Amino acid sequence: MQSKEIISLLQSEPSMHPITVSGWVRAFRSNRFIALNDGSTIKNIQCVVDFEKFEEDLLKKVTVGSAIQVEGTLVESQGQGQAIEIQVSKIDILGEADPEEVKLTILSPKRHTLEKLREQAHLRVRTNTFGAVMRLRSKLSFAVHEYFQKNGFYYMHTPIVTGSDAEGAGEMFRVSALDPKNPPLNEDGTIDYSQDFFGKESNLTVSGQLEAETYAMGLGKVYTFGPTFRAENSNTSRHLAEFWMIEPEVAFNDLADNMDLAEDFIKYVIKYALDNCQDDLEFLENRLLQEEKSKPQTERSEMSLREKLSFVIDNNFMRVSYTEAIEILKRSKPNKKKKFKYLIEEWGADLQSEHERFLVEKHFKCPVILFDYPAKIKAFYMRLNEDGNTVRAMDVLFPGIGEIVGGSQREERYDVLKQKMEDMGIPEEELSWYLDLRKFGTCVHSGFGLGFERLVLFVTGMGNIRDVIPYPRTPGNAEF
Amino acid sequence: MQSKEIISLLQSEPSMHPITVSGWVRAFRSNRFIALNDGSTIKNIQCVVDFEKFEEDLLKKVTVGSAIQVEGTLVESQGQGQAIEIQVSKIDILGEADPEEVKLTILSPKRHTLEKLREQAHLRVRTNTFGAVMRLRSKLSFAVHEYFQKNGFYYMHTPIVTGSDAEGAGEMFRVSALDPKNPPLNEDGTIDYSQDFFGKESNLTVSGQLEAETYAMGLGKVYTFGPTFRAENSNTSRHLAEFWMIEPEVAFNDLADNMDLAEDFIKYVIKYALDNCQDDLEFLENRLLQEEKSKPQTERSEMSLREKLSFVIDNNFMRVSYTEAIEILKRSKPNKKKKFKYLIEEWGADLQSEHERFLVEKHFKCPVILFDYPAKIKAFYMRLNEDGNTVRAMDVLFPGIGEIVGGSQREERYDVLKQKMEDMGIPEEELSWYLDLRKFGTCVHSGFGLGFERLVLFVTGMGNIRDVIPYPRTPGNAEF
Repeated sequence: MQSKEIISLLQSEPSMHPITVSGWVRAFRSNRFIALNDGSTIKNIQCVVDFEKFEEDLLKKVTVGSAIQVEGTLVESQGQGQAIEIQVSKIDILGEADPEEVKLTILSPKRHTLEKLREQAHLRVRTNTFGAVMRLRSKLSFAVHEYFQKNGFYYMHTPIVTGSDAEGAGEMFRVSALDPKNPPLNEDGTIDYSQDFFGKESNLTVSGQLEAETYAMGLGKVYTFGPTFRAENSNTSRHLAEFWMIEPEVAFNDLADNMDLAEDFIKYVIKYALDNCQDDLEFLENRLLQEEKSKPQTERSEMSLREKLSFVIDNNFMRVSYTEAIEILKRSKPNKKKKFKYLIEEWGADLQSEHERFLVEKHFKCPVILFDYPAKIKAFYMRLNEDGNTVRAMDVLFPGIGEIVGGSQREERYDVLKQKMEDMGIPEEELSWYLDLRKFGTCVHSGFGLGFERLVLFVTGMGNIRDVIPYPRTPGNAEF
Repeated sequence: MQSKEIISLLQSEPSMHPITVSGWVRAFRSNRFIALNDGSTIKNIQCVVDFEKFEEDLLKKVTVGSAIQVEGTLVESQGQGQAIEIQVSKIDILGEADPEEVKLTILSPKRHTLEKLREQAHLRVRTNTFGAVMRLRSKLSFAVHEYFQKNGFYYMHTPIVTGSDAEGAGEMFRVSALDPKNPPLNEDGTIDYSQDFFGKESNLTVSGQLEAETYAMGLGKVYTFGPTFRAENSNTSRHLAEFWMIEPEVAFNDLADNMDLAEDFIKYVIKYALDNCQDDLEFLENRLLQEEKSKPQTERSEMSLREKLSFVIDNNFMRVSYTEAIEILKRSKPNKKKKFKYLIEEWGADLQSEHERFLVEKHFKCPVILFDYPAKIKAFYMRLNEDGNTVRAMDVLFPGIGEIVGGSQREERYDVLKQKMEDMGIPEEELSWYLDLRKFGTCVHSGFGLGFERLVLFVTGMGNIRDVIPYPRTPGNAEF
């Protein structure tokens, strides 16, 4: 008699055939109804116990949080809320859970704050909210792979430890196996990294893009999906020091193709969640509704969670050049009434979160792709436009989330790229391999980066990025 | 007229409909036949040029390594080796490749050693061998996800930076954002890590297992697939400092279930490669055949690459207890004739690579699962058997590769685990969260770790682990 998962039992027909199921007790009502959950779905299966047929001592151990194995038959449910239930013939206690101790944890059956859940991150996946979020995270991850593989992309594992620090030097974590108290020194008193494990100073990657470009120049269409790191001291609800990033890179794609790819990709992944995670989305949608009840009417969302997801799938992302966006912002009410913290006065200004939110949430009321940014505020590797002032960059902005994608067409011209590196003080020998790509059969190519946790935030409707990754790493926090 | 990928063109019927294709020139014979590759497949498409219709200056730029865009029509091929070819009407040079400079690189059309290719790792994916290996790596990665998702597992991203050093302390890389020259010190002269980014000493993970266990206790069936790190100074063809690991963890699974899972999983993934990567496998198989020709007959493999893969799929893995294995080894010829470097004299000995290879390659001649190892040579978290001497550990051993999987049933009993941690000097406060799992509804559970690169080695038939990952990290090497 093989043990079955609750997700498949709930889809079965009543049958006299005996079944076995294992899980954790979520509730035990009236010494009669056990709500059992095994994590395969947010739904519990109801196990009906005839308490006269069982030892009192055994039933006493059926407490919230305990693990049990149940034997019985699937019958039509007499109660509401489920089609079938288990008529229990045998109970085995696998692992007890002392009610006095459970009381001190988030497993106790009452409402806990998200902050409290974060402190017990090793147990929080046993709550409905986190079970739902993490199942969604898993399904979304798979949708990412499925989309790219179906479309002929090759998955590439870019390195995590890198000896190259061309990007974001100050914000990187150092990786070392040297004795931190007595590191070997050079004659000038600096640390002698030639004696370190990798023979040079090395860091955790901030992006796999440059390496992904090397593979796009051979395999054509590639993507990465791996962890990236920022040693940035920002304690916000949108930043993590360790987060997972998706970076497709495509040979022969220009910026317009790149926008098409980003839009098509995001829509596919969101549709996958709508199609495959109905129960979890329903739960999270209701959770949001409850949460919003405590807000004033004006701050409540006009759409439910699933309506918001459908809206993204059903509508085109608005494509707006940076120059147009600046005009819109200049003429906007909050700019004229000086409500923006940073007023938009002239072309060239870097857009702040408040401006992005205005464009997306107030002006266009849909996802927006901004493109052709001033060269001065963007990275060295972006393709310079013929105007000499703007680069073929694009950002995808989402309601409630802000920037979810940042990408560009890459500078494919050897001389232009070399000049830009010089202007920005990037030593050529550091990136000679990157320049090589422009020497041997260079071509137009483009790509983008999508912060996976921001996508999970959007799809789950959660408010804090620490609640969409199992063990968040932030300033002062690397627990578990 | 949309540009098409070569993999789909090669499956198309001849047609007068004009097509466009972009790629890199692999060869240009007789000023007439361009072999064009775009990375979508190992196969080139033949582009036939009527040189009288093109400028000489243009054709001069069609050199090995250059990127071109070709317009034309798909016609039935007159030559051998391909069903269709392109009758070219237009050529655009996208990026030249100076033949004098190409000569100095591995792009030049001659045989280069794998060592040489490693030095130019940013270009090696443009060779047939590495294109094939990396496409296979991508397909195998997807097969991993597909297997687990189809079977109801949830993908979990375990943390990369960890403040817990319960496992393999000495072999970890430190992660820090402190000034390495002037780190803040405590009064006793030790480094004050409370001032570091994460507020404590932190390292790169060596395994996501313990965290995966926390999620298995909530979601039931989970798996990880992410990078792991070892600061081990081993310069061998089987070790990397940064490698990708797959770690499933399943609630309610015992050791026998765990073995079933490992075997079923490995077979699925290998079958996926056989079904989906025929061209690349054919190329790698021939490559191996060529390589073996230089070996004496006795050292050549009895099976071709694909025969070896099919053999694994079609046969049961042999399940042998450690105790039986010791008996076999004791009685073996190399032990009696003292050919082993480490002679097997008594029960309790740790098995070396030479012993594993004897069992797999000489004695059983098939993949072997060894189980029930002596407790003394295994980790603290493995389930103690009733005999008090052995633990429910298992290793899957593969021909030519050695250990490809290491797993166990986990110790689910609070008191036994706590005692073991004490015996092994692991401070309880370090792992109180891990002990908690045994306090609140503990249950039998099991899992394993599979080093992804070892699997890629086996499937591609490559000999060195540095050649199956884009940018290998090893002692003294973190280039690119």
